Amino acid sequence: MKTLFIGGIKSGKSRLAEAFILEQAATEKPYYLATTEFFDDEMQARIQIHQQRRQDLFVTLEEPVKLFEAVQKCRGPVLIECVSMWLNNQLYHQIPEGDILQELDTVLQLTGNMVLVHNEVGLSVVADNRLARQFVDLSGKAAQLMGQHCDQVYFCSAGLKMKMK
Amino acid sequence: MKTLFIGGIKSGKSRLAEAFILEQAATEKPYYLATTEFFDDEMQARIQIHQQRRQDLFVTLEEPVKLFEAVQKCRGPVLIECVSMWLNNQLYHQIPEGDILQELDTVLQLTGNMVLVHNEVGLSVVADNRLARQFVDLSGKAAQLMGQHCDQVYFCSAGLKMKMK
Amino acid sequence: MKTLFIGGIKSGKSRLAEAFILEQAATEKPYYLATTEFFDDEMQARIQIHQQRRQDLFVTLEEPVKLFEAVQKCRGPVLIECVSMWLNNQLYHQIPEGDILQELDTVLQLTGNMVLVHNEVGLSVVADNRLARQFVDLSGKAAQLMGQHCDQVYFCSAGLKMKMK
Repeated sequence: MKTLFIGGIKSGKSRLAEAFILEQAATEKPYYLATTEFFDDEMQARIQIHQQRRQDLFVTLEEPVKLFEAVQKCRGPVLIECVSMWLNNQLYHQIPEGDILQELDTVLQLTGNMVLVHNEVGLSVVADNRLARQFVDLSGKAAQLMGQHCDQVYFCSAGLKMKMK
Repeated sequence: MKTLFIGGIKSGKSRLAEAFILEQAATEKPYYLATTEFFDDEMQARIQIHQQRRQDLFVTLEEPVKLFEAVQKCRGPVLIECVSMWLNNQLYHQIPEGDILQELDTVLQLTGNMVLVHNEVGLSVVADNRLARQFVDLSGKAAQLMGQHCDQVYFCSAGLKMKMK
Repeated sequence: MKTLFIGGIKSGKSRLAEAFILEQAATEKPYYLATTEFFDDEMQARIQIHQQRRQDLFVTLEEPVKLFEAVQKCRGPVLIECVSMWLNNQLYHQIPEGDILQELDTVLQLTGNMVLVHNEVGLSVVADNRLARQFVDLSGKAAQLMGQHCDQVYFCSAGLKMKMK
């Protein structure tokens, strides 16, 4: 089964996704696939908060770019945290949009329990720089792909989730 | 019956609205009222994607400004794609906000099946330029007007829709 | 009972929250706690619209900073309009984030009917200035705190509300 948690910045989507997969994977320790690559001080602080929360509940993998390879290695339920950051890394490495979406599609064809966390970034005016617009478009296309392939989709705000599918 | 599909950039709202009106209008070809006026290369690319998807399923009209006149001409179900772009065009032509909302209100008084597509642009921090703030305010007021007059309202994200009304 | 109305700019959240508390508080006049402090011309215009709508339906208090003190004074149902502006004022006065969230938590421990209005500002790309990012993060943390303590939470768009809790 595949489940998507989509929401805004600090919407609680990561926390909800973690609780969700831990409840589902009651008897086996799930994998936590962290996609963050670029560290500035702010990002570092966020990562440490996430890490503290994970404690010993997950088997943690870090893979900023090769998502398909990393997910394939997991021998149990996997939490992908998060797809947005992976997209960002792909754009940074100048991977063409078609290839990025193709890889995501391949990941979504894998069997097994998978929980994906993704930022909804399109509920604003059009950004005034081309790179941001490119990211918003790619992010929305990726969201639609996940929305199509996932069995369950939750929209998150205020630490709560609404079932979309 | 009037139906609103509201959502973010690349949320799948246009695709959902098209599928919705085609299903409703099973026996008659619906009208597709395109409101886009300003073409840069990015916009042109988006329009072509939309056009390819429409194929021979719709009777296409293009009207960037005179919405009421255009909708009145349609002799069947009509998809307005999209209200946001029409608002943008109106602001560009320096139509006062009151007149814009008045025209939208008049459109919403028309009988017949109507499906409206609109961007939700207000779920972000306040924009740092006055024109963007003006657009966000107008867009929200227009959304409220549509929310009030429509029989059904769907909030879209990840290619999925949630029923609000 | 505590109820949160969260939504975007011009989503109709204030109007929905006002209607909600007036319906709940059928026999006693509710308090309207306005948190706005900083007035430019645009803000002034918005405030006047809000004030006209309130008429004689509410007992109006204005308190931009000392939220706990102000809420404690209310001898009946209270509408806090809005939490986002109060957060903004706190940041302006350089109150540390921990203290702000602590005060909000204390407010949420108070008994009695309370309706809170809050902006969801995180459904966009990451802002390009640090102050905006700080506000978005604080706003989301505050939203999660309210989401946790409130008995009912509504997500607003197009003048309509969706029940999240």
